[in-house]
This record gives sequence, structure tokens and C-alpha cells, in this order.
Amino acid sequence: MLKDYDTLWLDEELREVKYIDQTRLPNELVIKSIQSLDDMYRAIVDLEVRGAPAIGVFAALSMYVLSVRIGGETLADFVREYIRCSDYLQSARPTAVNLSWAVLIMRKELERYTLHRFDSYLLDSRLEGIKLDDELRGYIGNVMHAKALEIYENDINVCKCLGQNGLQVIKNGDRILTHCNAGRLATVRYGTATAPIYLANESGMNISVYCDETRPLLQGARLTAYELKQSGIKTTLLCDNMAASLMSSGKIDKVLVGCDRVAANGDVANKIGTLSLAIMAKHFGIPFYVCAPTSSIDLNVKSGDKIIIETRNPSEVTTKWYKNRMAPEGVDVFNPAFDITNNELITAIITERGIACGDYTNTLASMFE
Amino acid sequence: MLKDYDTLWLDEELREVKYIDQTRLPNELVIKSIQSLDDMYRAIVDLEVRGAPAIGVFAALSMYVLSVRIGGETLADFVREYIRCSDYLQSARPTAVNLSWAVLIMRKELERYTLHRFDSYLLDSRLEGIKLDDELRGYIGNVMHAKALEIYENDINVCKCLGQNGLQVIKNGDRILTHCNAGRLATVRYGTATAPIYLANESGMNISVYCDETRPLLQGARLTAYELKQSGIKTTLLCDNMAASLMSSGKIDKVLVGCDRVAANGDVANKIGTLSLAIMAKHFGIPFYVCAPTSSIDLNVKSGDKIIIETRNPSEVTTKWYKNRMAPEGVDVFNPAFDITNNELITAIITERGIACGDYTNTLASMFE
Repeated sequence: MLKDYDTLWLDEELREVKYIDQTRLPNELVIKSIQSLDDMYRAIVDLEVRGAPAIGVFAALSMYVLSVRIGGETLADFVREYIRCSDYLQSARPTAVNLSWAVLIMRKELERYTLHRFDSYLLDSRLEGIKLDDELRGYIGNVMHAKALEIYENDINVCKCLGQNGLQVIKNGDRILTHCNAGRLATVRYGTATAPIYLANESGMNISVYCDETRPLLQGARLTAYELKQSGIKTTLLCDNMAASLMSSGKIDKVLVGCDRVAANGDVANKIGTLSLAIMAKHFGIPFYVCAPTSSIDLNVKSGDKIIIETRNPSEVTTKWYKNRMAPEGVDVFNPAFDITNNELITAIITERGIACGDYTNTLASMFE
Repeated sequence: MLKDYDTLWLDEELREVKYIDQTRLPNELVIKSIQSLDDMYRAIVDLEVRGAPAIGVFAALSMYVLSVRIGGETLADFVREYIRCSDYLQSARPTAVNLSWAVLIMRKELERYTLHRFDSYLLDSRLEGIKLDDELRGYIGNVMHAKALEIYENDINVCKCLGQNGLQVIKNGDRILTHCNAGRLATVRYGTATAPIYLANESGMNISVYCDETRPLLQGARLTAYELKQSGIKTTLLCDNMAASLMSSGKIDKVLVGCDRVAANGDVANKIGTLSLAIMAKHFGIPFYVCAPTSSIDLNVKSGDKIIIETRNPSEVTTKWYKNRMAPEGVDVFNPAFDITNNELITAIITERGIACGDYTNTLASMFE
């Protein structure tokens, strides 16, 4: 039933990757079908597919589709071309961890199958002697498809389990504030911060969601408001600076946000603007929940101040989206992509393995035992 | 010296109103000179002149310029035309208190001079008998000019005194955060929240200012960042949701904002987003100052919850400024123009008569004794 709303998938004949072109939202729902490396590369570079988990799954499906199309005489030919494709795809967003992670898993699967490590283009000469016939191609295709499907389904399951855990904090009638897009468009289905909301909605609860537009890139306005409204959930858009006004008039019951990274002590890096929401929520006594797959929890990072924050181009603030420039030429611009929310401001961290709260250093660590 | 930077003024021959067309900022500095009622009306409607104090002064100068140009045979002809002009000008923004206030003061001055109350178009028949000769026109012009000049200079003086009082809380090296435009562009010169900043800068202090862009109308990006940068003050622009990140890294020493209305208990209505800044400032222990001419203090309003907040058009959030629509068609939008900041969050209220703090009900009332 939710299939209609998936962000990306394989076509029925398993020959193409299909996905929602997110650059066309919220004005048009455009589904693209692609099978060439260039199209896959471009889809990531142009942000037609975005959101860390979605990019990872997209890369896995892409590497499978490419593996079916790669030609050559020998297994060595195949492997050389496979490596070239995976290196190129990975270069589309060099800092996107999920992208390189998914490409690596797919490659490791091929290594496992061929009993060779592909650390370099200098392949074991035995591969040169193995003819790439239809039977071998079929085997490779099956192996790649199974692994891609595993990554795809794992994303759905993690989000669904996270959502089911999150349901514990949701009540019928809740009015929930969220920030940025931690929605299904950032994953395959359900999303992270939206997962409890979609599951609550599916189970017949009456939930309203308020979406921060999320300057400067407007992911809340363009994506979250779009996907929630599509799902028939009562959705209200606001500018980021209006949240306190809503809270002060008693219109918000809880805040749910996603996250980019959780430190071992429960400090959270998430889209710029998350920290102010957390401070306001504390001021007004409103619970503030972070939804985080355990893959986002980094026990090697002790606390939030160790997380390096990416600073982005001033043009995102001064000119992007606009008909005319909206700030004086040459003005300095402060444009960090993320901020760090101190663990003391966070009521609980909801993961697919359970809910952490209180002494995060212990409760988070115990999830990995 | 500051004359170059005034927002509006009379030309040297006292026949035209000159003003900076604020709709062309921040991209072009366009000075307009007008003398017709239609141009004056349009300048207000199209927001070429905006900011409550600036609109009031603009209306006063306009009514003077019109009074010089009105023709007719008798004083009755003059008064009828004067009333028509002032009624029309006032209708440009019916809810702008400063506009009707300035038009009324100018009209009362004419009444005082002619010893007649102009409550209706049914004028005392004696006015019909008074010939409108050059001498009489000269007298009326002088009276109107003197009153307009009084309103004009009063605006400058109030802002300057406010700024001088505000200097008490400014230190050399201060990094100040401000919101919206409570700057000179909203007044004739100095502004309100910017007045202490301009005076500190003039006195040689080294001040940096961080400007919230102030969604949805972007007055901070378009106007405040522009005017501060023009004045040679180190200016950095940020999105509203980035202020907490700045504060948490210790980069803000104090917050200065203007206000639309102060209640008797010190609760403050100001541009949407002010409340969240005040909450964050309190969280981080940063002083939060409101700059308010005493004309904004309304002792008849007991507390902030009695102030009615204007809700504005959703298109300001979803489409205005943009090349394409930035939110799904038909989505609900929460777009209040102002919010109420509780007096407990305010370190002090700076006025032209002094600084109020602590028990605002007493300290504010004592300013009017």
C-alpha cells in the first residue's frame, strides 16, 4: 500500500532504478527511470536523490543495475568496469558516508563471490581466464540483486522499527513540530522523524504536524510539507522563527526531529535550527525527541563539540531561490549547515533498537552490546 | 554629516519630498522626489517608504508639500482640498497608527491656525468669505512647514536620545545580534535598535552586528544589513534559525531589538521571531534589550496577551520573492506578523527618556510622570 509513496525502487523487470525527482517537488511529482552510470551520477550530483539513507540505497540499486549491463569477454573485463563504475558513482558526493558505504558493501559482495579482493586494477590473472558467459552473468546479477535488496529492505525495516518504538511517545490528537526533512523522501519509506507519525496515522490516530520551512534550503517547505500532505496528514507550514509563537500559545505537544550524527554522550548534530527548537521546547516544557537509526550513533565521538560543522556557500542565503538578490552585495554571511544540541535538552533518542534517555553515555552504549 | 543617510527629507527649495525607495534595496540606492498626492499615496502603499516612524514623518512632510500646491479662490476651497488630500493619504495604510497620527497633527495645526475645526466638509461660512491670496498662502505654508519640521526633528531627536541612553549598555568590541529592521530606514535617522549602534560607531567603538534575515519579509537581509554595511559597520547576515548556533559558540554579547508595542507590564510585541531570540538569550545568559520610543509604550494595555496579533497572507511564506513556488499547493500556513515576548525575558527597555528594568509596571509608568 505504501509502495506508491516510496522514494526509489527497482522497476518490475529489475533493469532500471526508478525514483522521485526531488528537485521538481513540491510543484510536480516526476518519477524518473534510469539505467546508465551517467544518469545515476547526475541524479546524485543534482540532488534529484538526497537524504543520506536514500542516497545509500540508490547507490546499491544502481550498482546492481549496472552489474547487469556491464559487458566484456572475461570476468576480469567485468570487474575492471565494475570498479570504474563504483569509483565514479562514489565521487558524486565524496563526503556522503552512506554513498561510499553502500558502494563498498556491493563491491565487497562481488569480491566475496569472485573470491578476489579488488584493491587495485591489477587483477589476479586467473580472472582473465574466466569467460563471462550468460551463466556467470546470471550468477553475478543474482548476487548483486540480493545484496541491493538487502540494503533496500534494511532501510525500510530500520525506519519501521524506529517508528514502532517512537509510537510509545505519540498520543492521539498530538500536534507535532518537526524541522528539515527527516521524512520518507530522505529514506526509502517512513523516514526517521516522520516514521512514528506515519505509523500513528496508519493506525488511525489523529495527528497534526507543523513543519519548519528550514532556511536556507527549505527542505521543510519543499519536502516535508509535501510528503506529509500527500499522505493525508494535517500539515501546517511555518517559518523557523515562528515556532516559539506556536509553543507559547500551547499549540505544540512535542517536537520530533531527525539527526545527522549522535555523539556517545547523546549530543546531537542536526540541521541548523534544531538547537533553537530544543531550547524553546525546554523553555515551554515541551518534550523534544530525536529520531536516530543506530547507524547515526557514533560512539567514537565523545561529545558534540568534537563534531565538525560544515559551513556552506553564502549564496544559499542571499540569492538561491530568489528572483532578485535579497541582501547587500558583499555582506558577510554566517551559513553553517548543522548545529549541536546538548544532550540535556533532549528528552529521549528514539532508535530502531529502543529508546535511550537519561544517562545517554550508558543507555546509548547498551544498544550496541 | 549623517544627512547623506537620512531616509527622507524635504528638497532645498521646500517643494518636494525626497526619500530612499526601499523596494529597490539592497540592490540599488534610488532617491525619489515627489510632489503629487498620487505619488505620495503610492509610495506608502507600495512600501517604498515603510517603518511606522518613517511613514509618520513622510505623511507630515507630504501634507506640508501639498499645502503649498493647493489652489482655490477662498480659504474654504483650500480647506476642502486639504481635507480630501489628508483623508486620501491616510487611507494608504489604514492600520498604520503613525500615519493617521501625523496627518491628524498636521490637520489640527491648520485648524488652530484658521480657528476652525474641520470635523466635516460643512465648513463655517466665514471661510468662504476669506480670499486665498499670496499672503495667506504664505502664512499657511509657514505654519505647515514648521509643524512638519517639528515632527521630522522630533523623530530624529527621540532616536538620538534613545541611542544615547542605549550607549550605557554598549561596550567597545561588542558583537550585537538584531532582528528585523528597527534601523534608520524605519525612521528618519539613527533608528531605534540601531541608534546605540550608530552612536557607538560614530564615537569610534568597534562594534560588529549580526542581522537575522527575518523571514518571511526579509527586512533584516534587505534593509538592516544594507544600512549597517553602508555605515561601515562590520555586518554579518544569518538565517533566523542560526542565532542559537552563534550564541552557543560565544559569539554574541547582547541582543538589541526594536518593538511595535510595549504593554504596561513590559511585555513586548515585536516582529515574529523576537520571542525565540529572547528565550535563547536567556538560555545562554546573554542580555536582551528592547529599544522603544515612549510613543510605543501603551500603558492602557495591561499585558502582552491583550495585544492582538495580525496574521498575514500565506503567499508571503510560500511564493513571495521566489522564482518558483516553494511549498505544496494548498498547504496550511501559520504566518503571524508579530509575537509577544514576556517581560521576564527582557533585561531592560531602552527609551528616549531613560532605561526601564526590573518591575516594569512601575519603571515604565514613572517615565510618563
